[in-house]
Parts: sequence; C-alpha cells; structure tokens
Amino acid sequence: MSKYVYGIDVGGTSIKIGLFDFNTTKLINSFEVKTPNKDDGKVIFETIYKNILDNNHNQEIELSSILGVGIDVPCPVKNGYVESCANLHIANINLIDEMKKYLPGNMVVTIANDATIAAYGENASLDKPYNNAVLITLGTGVGGGVILDGKIVEGSTGFAGEIGHIKVYDESDKVCGCGSKGCLEQICGTEGILDYTKKLLISQSSMLDTNNLSVKSIFDAAKVGDEVALETIHRVAKYIGIASSIISMVIEPDIFIIGGGVSKAGDFLLELIQKYYKENARFSTGKIPFKLAQTGNDAGMIGSALLVKSLIATE
Amino acid sequence: MSKYVYGIDVGGTSIKIGLFDFNTTKLINSFEVKTPNKDDGKVIFETIYKNILDNNHNQEIELSSILGVGIDVPCPVKNGYVESCANLHIANINLIDEMKKYLPGNMVVTIANDATIAAYGENASLDKPYNNAVLITLGTGVGGGVILDGKIVEGSTGFAGEIGHIKVYDESDKVCGCGSKGCLEQICGTEGILDYTKKLLISQSSMLDTNNLSVKSIFDAAKVGDEVALETIHRVAKYIGIASSIISMVIEPDIFIIGGGVSKAGDFLLELIQKYYKENARFSTGKIPFKLAQTGNDAGMIGSALLVKSLIATE
Repeated sequence: MSKYVYGIDVGGTSIKIGLFDFNTTKLINSFEVKTPNKDDGKVIFETIYKNILDNNHNQEIELSSILGVGIDVPCPVKNGYVESCANLHIANINLIDEMKKYLPGNMVVTIANDATIAAYGENASLDKPYNNAVLITLGTGVGGGVILDGKIVEGSTGFAGEIGHIKVYDESDKVCGCGSKGCLEQICGTEGILDYTKKLLISQSSMLDTNNLSVKSIFDAAKVGDEVALETIHRVAKYIGIASSIISMVIEPDIFIIGGGVSKAGDFLLELIQKYYKENARFSTGKIPFKLAQTGNDAGMIGSALLVKSLIATE
Repeated sequence: MSKYVYGIDVGGTSIKIGLFDFNTTKLINSFEVKTPNKDDGKVIFETIYKNILDNNHNQEIELSSILGVGIDVPCPVKNGYVESCANLHIANINLIDEMKKYLPGNMVVTIANDATIAAYGENASLDKPYNNAVLITLGTGVGGGVILDGKIVEGSTGFAGEIGHIKVYDESDKVCGCGSKGCLEQICGTEGILDYTKKLLISQSSMLDTNNLSVKSIFDAAKVGDEVALETIHRVAKYIGIASSIISMVIEPDIFIIGGGVSKAGDFLLELIQKYYKENARFSTGKIPFKLAQTGNDAGMIGSALLVKSLIATE
C-alpha cells in the first residue's frame, strides 16, 4: 500500500496543502485554503485537519496511509513551541501538541518556522544537498533560514535565521519594524528599496516614475542601465554581501541560497551579491558559492514534507 | 585496567600536554614543552608523540591504555584538514593523518581549532552544558567558537566562529589584520583598546599614563571611575554586545561565554556586555544569558580531551 505525507505551508492569508508520496516525495496534489482569521489562532489546526480528511476522501486515501504531517508557520518556533506570534494570533502554545489532538497518536508531526523550512526545502531539493546551507529571502521583508549538519537550526527560542535583522550599518534615527536600528531589512526590504530610490529621484534624472514605483520596476530599469536604479540595486546587493560575510564568520556555510520574490531578478542580482560578498568576505571565505532558490512558491510545502519525512523511519 | 586520553593544546610558542582519566576526565598530570620552530610544522606531531611516550613511561602507563589523543591548533581546521596556517608553518595537510602516522591504528585522534575547542571545553565544563553555546575570547585578538547541538561547528573550510572578524561598524580607513575593515577585533582587540584610549588621552585628563598603558591598567582605572577608561571599556562592551546580537540573529545560542585574558576584568565587564547586548538584541533574544569562562589556561587541554572522549564508545 502506498504511503504519504502532507507538507503544509501556513501563511497569514492562505494555507497551502500538499499531498506527497512518501517514498519519492513527489507532489500528488495541492490546493490552497483561506487562513481562518479568528482571535484564537488554534482554529487553524482544525481547518488543516478537515482539509486533510476531505483531500484524503477525494484522493481515495485512508488516514492510516498518511505517515506524517509537516507544517510551517510564519512565527518563531522552537521544538513546536511558539511564545508569541501576531501573524497567527497565537501565544504560549505548543503547535505540535495542538495538531496532534486531531491526528492518530502514531502520526509524526513537525511544525517549524516558514523561512527555516524554506531553507531546508531549497537545500534538500538541490541535486546534491549541502550539510550546511543558509537561505536569504528577499521580499517585503528579509528573512532566512539556517541548516547545519543537515538539520534545521531554530535557536534558543526560535529566532535563528532572522537574517533580516542582522545589524549591518550604523543607523541613528530610523527604527526597523523589529524595534531596533541598522537592520539588513531596513535597506533590502521593499520599503527600504523604495524609500532610497525616491530619495535619489529628487535630485537625479531617471526613467523611473516616483509616483509609480515598484521593486520590479527598479530592477527592470537597472537591467537597462538606469543610473538611479543601478545605485539602489548595488546598495541592496552590497548589504546582502556584507550580511553574508558576517554569517560566514559565525558558521561559514557551504552555500548561500537567495530566494523570495525579489530574487526573481535572477542572475543579474545574484552576480552583484556575489561581487559584494567577495569584497567583504574575510580570509579565504569568499569562495563560498551562491545559488538562486529553485522551488518558488512550493518551498514551504516541499520543505515541510521533507522535514517530516526525515523523522519517519523508512521501512 | 584504567584507561586514559590525552588533551593537547598547541600554541605558537608552547604545547600544553595533559593526561586525563578516561572515565572521569580528571587531569592526572600536565606539562608544557616548547613548540618546535621549524620550517616544516609537521615536526610538531613527532614532538607530541615523543612526549606522550615519555609521560607514559613516567606515569607507568602502557600506550595501549591510551584510548585517544585530542589536539587543538591555532589554525582554521576542517575535519583535521588545514589549508593554510602561518602560526604553525603548515599548509594543505590533514593533521589527523599526520598524528596517526605515529600512533596505533585503533587510537582515536581529533584535531580542531583552539578557540572552537575552548568553546567546547568551556561549555562541557559547565554544571549543565548547553546544546548551543558561543564562546567569545577577548585577548590580543578577538576569537571565538560555536557549539551547536552539542557539536563543534567548523564551517565549510574552518572559519566558523571567527567572531573577531564580524563586521560591526562602518570603517573607511583602518585595515584589520585579516585584510578587511570594520572588524570587531579592531575595536575590542588589545591594539584597538590601546589606540582608542591614547586618542582620548590627548584631550582629556585621566589617571592613565599614555606612555605606560595596558589593557589591565585601563580596566583598573575604569573600575575606580576614571572617565577616559570608562569610555574605552563601554565602547568595548558595546561592540561585544552588538556582535552578540548579530550572532543571535544567525543561530540564537542558549548561552554566550566570555573568555580570554581580558575577561579577567570579571563581572565588571560581563555586566556591561550584557547591558549593551540587551540594548541591541532583536525581538525577545535579549534574555540569552552570559557567563564568564571558567577553565582558564587549561581550556584547550580540557576541551581537546572532552572532544576525543566524545568520539570513543564507552565500554
């Protein structure tokens, strides 16, 4: 009888649910449901359970052939425990225990941070996964995940891999969303990119329209040589390079993987990041390779499925 | 029959050799020999072997009752391999293979970086060792070591835990010994501390004598309220705090341990570092505890003995 696992990616607005073949980790089917917006975030797990039952029914699969459920959430997580997560309206709760209330006792459940799971999924999806990998995700915010010795690194209370809040510059005024100053995200998050471009546009001519600006429009303009756009993008790449050089002095990973929406800028961005990484890398650590993330929007489902699979003994 | 391991700390000027009881890790005896200063650093391993034989003879111990030899070296090391290490005149060599040439085939040998081993030894020597620990050593230079999941982290090519070369400030001119700029060591190493104090002494009155300055004299003056000394020490503590906050966003350890000669300043320094760590820590990571290192000059021998012991199956 075939065996399966679920890989589930919980976001603030939607939950992506994927059914995977256990042996091949091939995606059988996937679908998206709305994240319930309740005061009590625990209802999410009831929603997940009901959708698993419905999907099993549609796919003509017994619950007993599901070996595990892997889930990621947009929260700091340590061994399934979340101290506080405004994104999902939950606090002081072990999410693994919560999910297990609905599932048969022998079913393996993993719940971890979404960016950490994306790092796990991206690395495990490489032709030859590395033992030690760091994912940096560039989107509205800047996030990341750390894999060491093939395992996810959660940190003491779930804050490992918060790459966007590494202090990379001396900022005296502007406060980051996290409450601190000088964070990587303040330069390389969407707001930081747009604000810096707007400031340049006050005094420099450009093909960019300050009233109709997006990160994509800036990358597009940079690719055709617009000076303002180039200055912004070089600044983003420089600080990702600096942050990566800092990470290397802590754990020196085997690979840096660049993901998130902004990474759609592709090799153009990747090459600039590598240039600035090499300029800032200490000793001989400039040799560490950089790759673009490959799994796209499915990273969370795939990573979750792979993580739970890794905890299930093969028969 | 009693069993033993050797824990050996190789420095640029001397080699500390300790014989430990295998079961209790109690130090039986220890002694120091000069590091051979040869063009070919490999001769170090012959020196170590001869001293092991001599000490065994003196202690009336058979070579067959030595289960393992743990060694640390002042070089970046990855799985025993050293690409380049000016301190010991060696390059492109696997040091474990080199040591094993002299020893019986079944003897377990570990060789790792000295600061990493110190981190391992300091953490393992705590009443209750942590899974994830970071040691920051403050001395002539600033070093460190990272322990994750109870294991040493070497990094892709041996540069993990090079805490002194984390970029912590925007420096445009002064180049660090590593060839880069803005390194923690440039502020918190002996040279950085003395230079900054001398600069302050040009315009400020102080009990300090600019012609007879040492890091110890600055700490002593700070403890009795000298303004110049206090400004220097606060600056050191601030940047150790910032570096620690950065480390927390990468791996969020369970504990920071502060060691090295400068850490003899004791709780006075530790409390300042914690103050600045809390001010710079992101999210709720300000709670991570700081401790002073305890094993002193024996950290390398103890850590090396504990690491090799961890690889030997208990009977």
